[in-house]
Amino acid sequence: MHILTISYSGTLRESLRIFFESRIFQTVITAIIIINSILIGLETSEAIMLSYGRIIDVIDLTILVLFSIEILLKIFVYKFGFFKNSWNVFDFLVVAISLVPAAGSFSVFRALRIIRTLRLLRSIPKLRLIIESLVKSLPSIGWIAVLLGIVFYVFSVIGVNLFGQLYPAYFGDMSKAIFTLFQIMTLESWSSAIARPVMDGVAFAGVYFVTFILIATYTTLNIFIAIVVNTMNEVSLKDLKEEEQHIKDFVTEQNLKLEQRLIQIQNDLLKIAEKSN
Amino acid sequence: MHILTISYSGTLRESLRIFFESRIFQTVITAIIIINSILIGLETSEAIMLSYGRIIDVIDLTILVLFSIEILLKIFVYKFGFFKNSWNVFDFLVVAISLVPAAGSFSVFRALRIIRTLRLLRSIPKLRLIIESLVKSLPSIGWIAVLLGIVFYVFSVIGVNLFGQLYPAYFGDMSKAIFTLFQIMTLESWSSAIARPVMDGVAFAGVYFVTFILIATYTTLNIFIAIVVNTMNEVSLKDLKEEEQHIKDFVTEQNLKLEQRLIQIQNDLLKIAEKSN
Amino acid sequence: MHILTISYSGTLRESLRIFFESRIFQTVITAIIIINSILIGLETSEAIMLSYGRIIDVIDLTILVLFSIEILLKIFVYKFGFFKNSWNVFDFLVVAISLVPAAGSFSVFRALRIIRTLRLLRSIPKLRLIIESLVKSLPSIGWIAVLLGIVFYVFSVIGVNLFGQLYPAYFGDMSKAIFTLFQIMTLESWSSAIARPVMDGVAFAGVYFVTFILIATYTTLNIFIAIVVNTMNEVSLKDLKEEEQHIKDFVTEQNLKLEQRLIQIQNDLLKIAEKSN
Amino acid sequence: MHILTISYSGTLRESLRIFFESRIFQTVITAIIIINSILIGLETSEAIMLSYGRIIDVIDLTILVLFSIEILLKIFVYKFGFFKNSWNVFDFLVVAISLVPAAGSFSVFRALRIIRTLRLLRSIPKLRLIIESLVKSLPSIGWIAVLLGIVFYVFSVIGVNLFGQLYPAYFGDMSKAIFTLFQIMTLESWSSAIARPVMDGVAFAGVYFVTFILIATYTTLNIFIAIVVNTMNEVSLKDLKEEEQHIKDFVTEQNLKLEQRLIQIQNDLLKIAEKSN
Repeated sequence: MHILTISYSGTLRESLRIFFESRIFQTVITAIIIINSILIGLETSEAIMLSYGRIIDVIDLTILVLFSIEILLKIFVYKFGFFKNSWNVFDFLVVAISLVPAAGSFSVFRALRIIRTLRLLRSIPKLRLIIESLVKSLPSIGWIAVLLGIVFYVFSVIGVNLFGQLYPAYFGDMSKAIFTLFQIMTLESWSSAIARPVMDGVAFAGVYFVTFILIATYTTLNIFIAIVVNTMNEVSLKDLKEEEQHIKDFVTEQNLKLEQRLIQIQNDLLKIAEKSN
Repeated sequence: MHILTISYSGTLRESLRIFFESRIFQTVITAIIIINSILIGLETSEAIMLSYGRIIDVIDLTILVLFSIEILLKIFVYKFGFFKNSWNVFDFLVVAISLVPAAGSFSVFRALRIIRTLRLLRSIPKLRLIIESLVKSLPSIGWIAVLLGIVFYVFSVIGVNLFGQLYPAYFGDMSKAIFTLFQIMTLESWSSAIARPVMDGVAFAGVYFVTFILIATYTTLNIFIAIVVNTMNEVSLKDLKEEEQHIKDFVTEQNLKLEQRLIQIQNDLLKIAEKSN
Repeated sequence: MHILTISYSGTLRESLRIFFESRIFQTVITAIIIINSILIGLETSEAIMLSYGRIIDVIDLTILVLFSIEILLKIFVYKFGFFKNSWNVFDFLVVAISLVPAAGSFSVFRALRIIRTLRLLRSIPKLRLIIESLVKSLPSIGWIAVLLGIVFYVFSVIGVNLFGQLYPAYFGDMSKAIFTLFQIMTLESWSSAIARPVMDGVAFAGVYFVTFILIATYTTLNIFIAIVVNTMNEVSLKDLKEEEQHIKDFVTEQNLKLEQRLIQIQNDLLKIAEKSN
Repeated sequence: MHILTISYSGTLRESLRIFFESRIFQTVITAIIIINSILIGLETSEAIMLSYGRIIDVIDLTILVLFSIEILLKIFVYKFGFFKNSWNVFDFLVVAISLVPAAGSFSVFRALRIIRTLRLLRSIPKLRLIIESLVKSLPSIGWIAVLLGIVFYVFSVIGVNLFGQLYPAYFGDMSKAIFTLFQIMTLESWSSAIARPVMDGVAFAGVYFVTFILIATYTTLNIFIAIVVNTMNEVSLKDLKEEEQHIKDFVTEQNLKLEQRLIQIQNDLLKIAEKSN
């Protein structure tokens, strides 16, 4: 009775859902993503573009259409539930970005078609697991990142005020200063290209750079330690819980032996008591 | 009776103390600091300064006056106790530094107004926690830093003596040599800009640079390890203590079962003994 | 009887096998590898080549012949089993590569003769252990490396599309872009030589470089953490298992004392029961 | 009787030994080392040398004489035992090196006088502890360092053979190649100054550099991990041993309670048995 009441679109929806969650569908999609990625990679070669450009473009467009249909059908099947899964949102955005160059022909958006490759991060289970664990360890960075943000803001304002006029390429405005500080944090040419030239103009500038490096690297180090300790702790806690369980089981088993003897003794006492009556 | 004897300034003090420790005061101060930080950031843009410079300056001055009054009132409330809390000392210094450019107009001190932003490190609880834990892990660095200081001193004296006359920009005097060694420790252009040119003049100079890098990085590595091991140990010790407690509780509980049986047996024996009398 | 039925080649094989696995053979081979390595090193000096070039070449050729005979004899002894041991395959490849320049005289292959030195990695037991543990910890990198590969692929395609025409030296084709990204991942001159020049031509390029650095270093960091956690966990699990065993042994021993008392009690009860009969 | 038989030099020796091991002697020596270090540091300033050069030289010479006498007296006191303590050998070498420039006036040895400062590493107990723990963790590096040495040797021979003639500054001979590889291992200008220029001449050179970086950094990483795991393990093993002891103590204590009840039961049984007789 219940089955009969399912409307036509209901049965279609159900069949599609089963199809989308089938292994073969996953494999086919993965294969299409890989083929698409290779094709977009081949397009970077002018020689290949000259000979096979048209064919590649056609295949690329076909795949894009397939992906769009896939997303649309999934929205049809899961309705609003589709957007509750962040991987679905990810897929949706990736395909949406790919649709922009199909309309116009902005080179930037054309270049961004390759991010469709990132759909592999979802469709290969092992990668999905790694991504999920990487994302999960992000919150432990959270507030240290805010702290680093404040440090960057303070130092960039000081940098613009002190060195902005003399060294506009490095400290001309806030965005340049922040980029320069990021470069300094990576320790790339911080002294030979930035600190030493600046120190020629502003004598005490060395203090600014050394202080920033010490604070930035110490804070980064602590981001790193936060992640390591977090990961380690999870693993070692699991081991400890296991050890605890083993010891408890062992104690239980050992005490059971004692208890059985005690029960025997109680039985013996019962018999003695009965006899002595 | 006791309440009545509180003098006028006493009641004012008490009310102010309650006000300072209220949640709303904290939130308002945090908001003011953020607004002030954004304004000082905006001042780095010449276009904005031309149009809104006066208004921003007025707001900035107002906020500075507010901060000064806040500090003064807090000193009034907590008296000498105010300076016992290192966060208060921090606030005091930050506001004090900001007052210098208000008097004169030294560009450096004007630039330093932005460190008022650092008051956020106190007023946002999560950040305060991180800062306190970062500061707490500093002592574990302590003596390794002294060791690093000695290494820097020894190598800078050798550097000035050996390379000072030929390469004054890098090893002209002690402060230059120490800055150069700091640059070498960060591995920035140590070979292409410093070691190779110096080796053209002083053949065996390579030994100096490689030795310094090996010692400096090995020591830095050990600073890092000291912090990691310290943090990890704290965390894992907590886990171990917990596991220990669980096992102890479990053993207690198991033995209680045995003990109750023993008590029963003792009671049975008592009865038998009574009967056999 | 059994020994008599071993064929001639069988006895030879057996004697050779015993010889190959003898300590003296290992030591001699190690010595020959070291001598060979030193000789190939000496050949890099033109002065030495002029005076002793012929002698060195003769010794080198002799050693190569010895190594080839060793491999051939081992294949004769162990037959196909020879190639099941990956160290044997390693030795085979190293000697095979060395045989190429003996035939022709390509300078590259001549330069590669020195990889015979790598046979030390097998013949010195301590080094073999380290290599084996290094190789064993590779799988824990596995999928993160795949992830890094995808990140490299996506960014290199974007790089070629966006910056290829303006900066052919860095982003001219896929292989150049991948090499450039590798350089950026090592943070070497990423800003002064690559990002800043590119940003002069393509304004928003900074986003590309900063994003790549954040993703690449975060992923590399996680490769590193994976290895550390893996190694630590193995070690700490061993310690935990030991602790567990100690506690179990202790509980057993303690409970044995209780059990013996219980057995005595049971015996006493038996006696009482008998008497009371 | 025994005391009386001590010869004159014996009593002197004993008094000196007590003096050398006294706290005041340690403090005085530490103070002299610090004063000496500051003076040698001051000598790097030409202005100070012009005004106070003579005085500083006299003090410096006096301190050197004091140090020499100290060492000689210690050898007199401890005889050959003196050289069994590696810290003594260290002191001896430091003073010996300082004596060379006193004789001749080679600028290098004059520069090396500052290493007397390193005597602080012994005379300040906290530093001595750190140095001893740093040295103790060196063996865990041991064989990985040998492995790194082999990698350096193999790559430097290949480098000299392939790039030696085209790029003599980087790969002219073995020592230059090893220095270049060390620079590459620190990732300093490896691509912009070395790999890219070399790749202009030798097309496939990129493989050489990338391979070396991957192997060298992976091996260095494992040196690092070896130290971390070693240090962590020591600490965590100590914690585990402690936890084990706590649990054992607790089990003992708990079982004692059970045992006492069992003893009571045995006594009760004894009484019953006696009565039933």
